[in-house]
Amino acid sequence: MPYPAGVSPSSLRIALLGCGVVGSQVARLLRDNADELEQRCGARLELIGALVQDPTKPRDGIPASLLTADADEVLQSGAPDIVVELIGGIEPARSLLLRAIAAGASVVTANKALLAHDGATVHDAAAQQGVDVAFEASVAGAIPLLRPLKESLAGDRVDRVLGIVNGTTNYILTRMDEAGVSYADALREAQDLGYAEADPTADVEGHDAAAKAAILASLAFHTRVRLEDVAVRGISHLTAADIAAARAMSHVIKLLAVAERSDDGGIGVRVAPAMVPLTHPLASVREAYNAVFVEARAAGQLMFYGRGAGGAPTASAVLGDIVSLARNRVLGGRDPGESAYAQLPISDPGSARSRHYLSIAVQDRTGVLAKVASTLADHGVSIETLRQDGRGADAVLTIVTHSSSAAEIKATVAKLRALDEVRDVASVMQVVGD
Amino acid sequence: MPYPAGVSPSSLRIALLGCGVVGSQVARLLRDNADELEQRCGARLELIGALVQDPTKPRDGIPASLLTADADEVLQSGAPDIVVELIGGIEPARSLLLRAIAAGASVVTANKALLAHDGATVHDAAAQQGVDVAFEASVAGAIPLLRPLKESLAGDRVDRVLGIVNGTTNYILTRMDEAGVSYADALREAQDLGYAEADPTADVEGHDAAAKAAILASLAFHTRVRLEDVAVRGISHLTAADIAAARAMSHVIKLLAVAERSDDGGIGVRVAPAMVPLTHPLASVREAYNAVFVEARAAGQLMFYGRGAGGAPTASAVLGDIVSLARNRVLGGRDPGESAYAQLPISDPGSARSRHYLSIAVQDRTGVLAKVASTLADHGVSIETLRQDGRGADAVLTIVTHSSSAAEIKATVAKLRALDEVRDVASVMQVVGD
Repeated sequence: MPYPAGVSPSSLRIALLGCGVVGSQVARLLRDNADELEQRCGARLELIGALVQDPTKPRDGIPASLLTADADEVLQSGAPDIVVELIGGIEPARSLLLRAIAAGASVVTANKALLAHDGATVHDAAAQQGVDVAFEASVAGAIPLLRPLKESLAGDRVDRVLGIVNGTTNYILTRMDEAGVSYADALREAQDLGYAEADPTADVEGHDAAAKAAILASLAFHTRVRLEDVAVRGISHLTAADIAAARAMSHVIKLLAVAERSDDGGIGVRVAPAMVPLTHPLASVREAYNAVFVEARAAGQLMFYGRGAGGAPTASAVLGDIVSLARNRVLGGRDPGESAYAQLPISDPGSARSRHYLSIAVQDRTGVLAKVASTLADHGVSIETLRQDGRGADAVLTIVTHSSSAAEIKATVAKLRALDEVRDVASVMQVVGD
Repeated sequence: MPYPAGVSPSSLRIALLGCGVVGSQVARLLRDNADELEQRCGARLELIGALVQDPTKPRDGIPASLLTADADEVLQSGAPDIVVELIGGIEPARSLLLRAIAAGASVVTANKALLAHDGATVHDAAAQQGVDVAFEASVAGAIPLLRPLKESLAGDRVDRVLGIVNGTTNYILTRMDEAGVSYADALREAQDLGYAEADPTADVEGHDAAAKAAILASLAFHTRVRLEDVAVRGISHLTAADIAAARAMSHVIKLLAVAERSDDGGIGVRVAPAMVPLTHPLASVREAYNAVFVEARAAGQLMFYGRGAGGAPTASAVLGDIVSLARNRVLGGRDPGESAYAQLPISDPGSARSRHYLSIAVQDRTGVLAKVASTLADHGVSIETLRQDGRGADAVLTIVTHSSSAAEIKATVAKLRALDEVRDVASVMQVVGD
């Protein structure tokens, strides 16, 4: 329970749920920075316990006496003021968070999967109980992002968010671009470096980024956005030819999480590889770094850049949340939690408008270009730039369109593929503006 | 006065002090976004008046009835909950802010000069009165920066802050680098575009950046840092040759505000042009954009990027502060205001360690290089890279040193200048690491 008005606690009790790489770092920072944290919070932060599966397994820098497999011990007898959930996944994380909230604790979570899948349950429970939920670490690790979106831009109107929010895929794309290696080799490198899992599906197919896109969209547009609202395409189909084509156009390919206002008054949320001009701030975000680019009506273009993963960076974000919730316990007040008053409709992914890049393999014979061009025109798709390169009996047409809807492009591509003269539409990608 | 516990106001009274470009935009956003702001604050935000010198002069989008030259009318009879100071300069801004605070209002200010010169007076008054002071717009305009530093990084330890915080000089340096124009021509362009004042001294000599450096250093290191603690060097002495030398080394010259922990346990704060490697995120910050790069112990490298000036961007930052203080009025709680518990000593500027770039014009004759090299060695300065270019009877030595203190470099340069063989030490600049 929050302390009654006028009563300031001299210490606050912190409990961890889960204690892996991030949890150990949180515990370390709580200990190493104890004096500074006390100054910043107005109360001593005391780690009272950590719920783990196997309490006999020693954890870096946490006394064995604090480890327990007994949730009651941590959440009930421990009477924590702040509970930090670092288990991940839907269950048992959700049930444990709900128990913590019901017991009056404010909660910090880095759990993007739970928030994107069923954040509403957690937010509603916290609102009913009058406690805080903070989740800075759930998107883009160490980058202070959610708090700026919620607080600093609270007087502005966000139009668009473009994020590089998955370090694994950004590492792979950086290596393909800079070292010219194949997708398969770049993936192997990422696995060797520990950036990618043995089963890289969640990263390379865009599912991890999609959960973060849902959370970002919710915050930016004051609307509940769930994972299933996000249209997703990954990077596993990208080839060296795509990378080379981007480079020839002074662009670079990035896997972007996009959330934007649509013409129909709704919001579109998607994850897909896109071509980014080299002059765009997102183009220089290399290797495993993350960055989120925000376009707001009054503020203009903003970008937030930093490490998106890793024990210490994620722990830094968790600690920032802990300090904020601790200050609220000491001084009263509440964090700006979920804000979903706008409840904008989710737009049909087909309505998303953008310039598009098309790579079309055609037979190199008279009249082909006219046929392709008229197919585009028939679908209302106009051409910004076109390049034709001969390849023996074939040719490759590289086209960048003016702004068109995804649906128009999809119909155009289907029609192109049906043409005898077209061998293949090898690649279709959105192109970000300058 | 804050509302008593349990009493939530249905509307909050906002007063503006000063109503120029930023003030008009703040008034516009308060009107245009009124419904959204009410949802976000939990109370209606009502603009009750604007203090201006000449109330007969019409202002964009503000009813004439709200304009007044009478401070009493705004600060006393108006009984504002939140007072927004946009006058700038020390007086009368300080006196008016103190009156507002004494009357129980929370205050928002964009006044970097006042905060850097005498922030303590304002912060102390607010602390005594139990009201908030917010000042996001005072550094780097629209970029959410102070709130992330104060809140998101509250559990971490900042080691260094490097900021491009003056758009005018960044525009000039960008033009010198990209278009090869001279300093004088680039300055004239900046003046034509309205980026630079007719008297550009405050920008080009680094004074504007120095005030922001003081504010950033205060926040990052929980220490009161004043303008006079900042060592300042501007860009007016830079030549096309410096820019070319930087480019030849794959670097670019930026005017950086630097605040960092020193080896002696204190903090060093300075503004000076520095060479930034092209691979560094700050290198791609072009034209009038601002960016602040932060190195924190756990979070690692972070960067915040956006517009540093302009009516609408600055108003966005002011509105974010207004919403935050309004929420505190509605829900209780306090903003993390000034935090100066650490009170670290300010280090001697001579103790600042860095790699250095030296450009030395010498007579092209036998033994010169040995003499220069031994002069460096005598002062404990070791050489990382050296390049010699012939220029007729003369030669230019371009040297990058390993990390040395500013004092060592200064003594070395004085000794070099005294050598017969040295025509001039044309340029000395710090070099930022990768």
